[in-house]
Amino acid sequence: MANDSAPRRSAARTAERRRRADAERSIAAILDAALDAVSERGDVNMSELARAAGVGRVTLYTHFPGKEDLLDAVMTRAIEDANAVLAEAEPPGGLPARDALAQVIRRAWPVLDRYRRLHTAAARVLGAERMRAHHDAPMRLVAGLIDRGREEGGIRADLPRDWLITVVYSTLHAAALEVDAGRLTPAEAPEILVATLLPALSPT
Amino acid sequence: MANDSAPRRSAARTAERRRRADAERSIAAILDAALDAVSERGDVNMSELARAAGVGRVTLYTHFPGKEDLLDAVMTRAIEDANAVLAEAEPPGGLPARDALAQVIRRAWPVLDRYRRLHTAAARVLGAERMRAHHDAPMRLVAGLIDRGREEGGIRADLPRDWLITVVYSTLHAAALEVDAGRLTPAEAPEILVATLLPALSPT
Repeated sequence: MANDSAPRRSAARTAERRRRADAERSIAAILDAALDAVSERGDVNMSELARAAGVGRVTLYTHFPGKEDLLDAVMTRAIEDANAVLAEAEPPGGLPARDALAQVIRRAWPVLDRYRRLHTAAARVLGAERMRAHHDAPMRLVAGLIDRGREEGGIRADLPRDWLITVVYSTLHAAALEVDAGRLTPAEAPEILVATLLPALSPT
Repeated sequence: MANDSAPRRSAARTAERRRRADAERSIAAILDAALDAVSERGDVNMSELARAAGVGRVTLYTHFPGKEDLLDAVMTRAIEDANAVLAEAEPPGGLPARDALAQVIRRAWPVLDRYRRLHTAAARVLGAERMRAHHDAPMRLVAGLIDRGREEGGIRADLPRDWLITVVYSTLHAAALEVDAGRLTPAEAPEILVATLLPALSPT
């Protein structure tokens, strides 16, 4: 029996692996197509999405029962991208936290700009608090720099720490909205952001 | 015939006036109930709303075919309220624009706090750009003070004027979200806002 069941178990495992690989490929294609749709048109249509991703509607709805699940997953991928970029942004020590924060803002901007229409579309479906939760990891990096800056004296200690994090978060996203509305160019945004945020974060 | 039709015209006019008065009363009741629902639960359900407003479902849907129309109308009323408060906020001259702006922020806060859950709910349905358009009138007041402050030298002229308006707008609404999330108290918000915004708007 052992001789008989081992190949069968192995065949079952191979089939299972193949199914999982297929599912992963489908999910990746769906998320790519969803990001494209949102970036181009500011919204995503589930029927068009299945076509664009080259998957059946059943497959689409199995993985993402609704737009909310879908945008949640696209946001998760975008934030992973942002984290990867920001992880490299803080220079390896030496720089005061205040200057490191300016660097982080400059490095964050292109990622923010890339995903700005996704952010707008996802915010409408997920709401402000869930969007904020998505940004936990990148905001922890900002929080760490704000804490260090308060100890060093380069960042103000007279306002609540969480408020300063919020000011960074909301001003960055306000700039992305301004670019989307054509009231700011992507090229001028990073220096305008640094010139706005550093005085707001400085000791008075 | 003139003797005959004049009273008939008058009766028709009276009936028409009554219909209009009924419609106005229904609309006012619907908008009041909608604001209550949004302020308490952060959302509004059309069926519950008809009951709460004491109108029939047909009446409700005649005036507001969908949630979008409804929240648009509730936002319009809230902004009228804000305008009335802000119109008194700028002291009758003498005060530098920079100080007048600080006053406007302090006066705007209680209105913003009153409508903060409406803002969140409406933003999800109407989107960022339509929300921004709703704020045109109060933001014109801010814009006027920023322009005067740039001439007087109390407000920075090195960043685009529209960006400075956006910074005021987005920081005010970020504070309302923080209060809603329990990360800031309504009492501390106005001075924190002034302490954040004045340095961001000052010449460097």
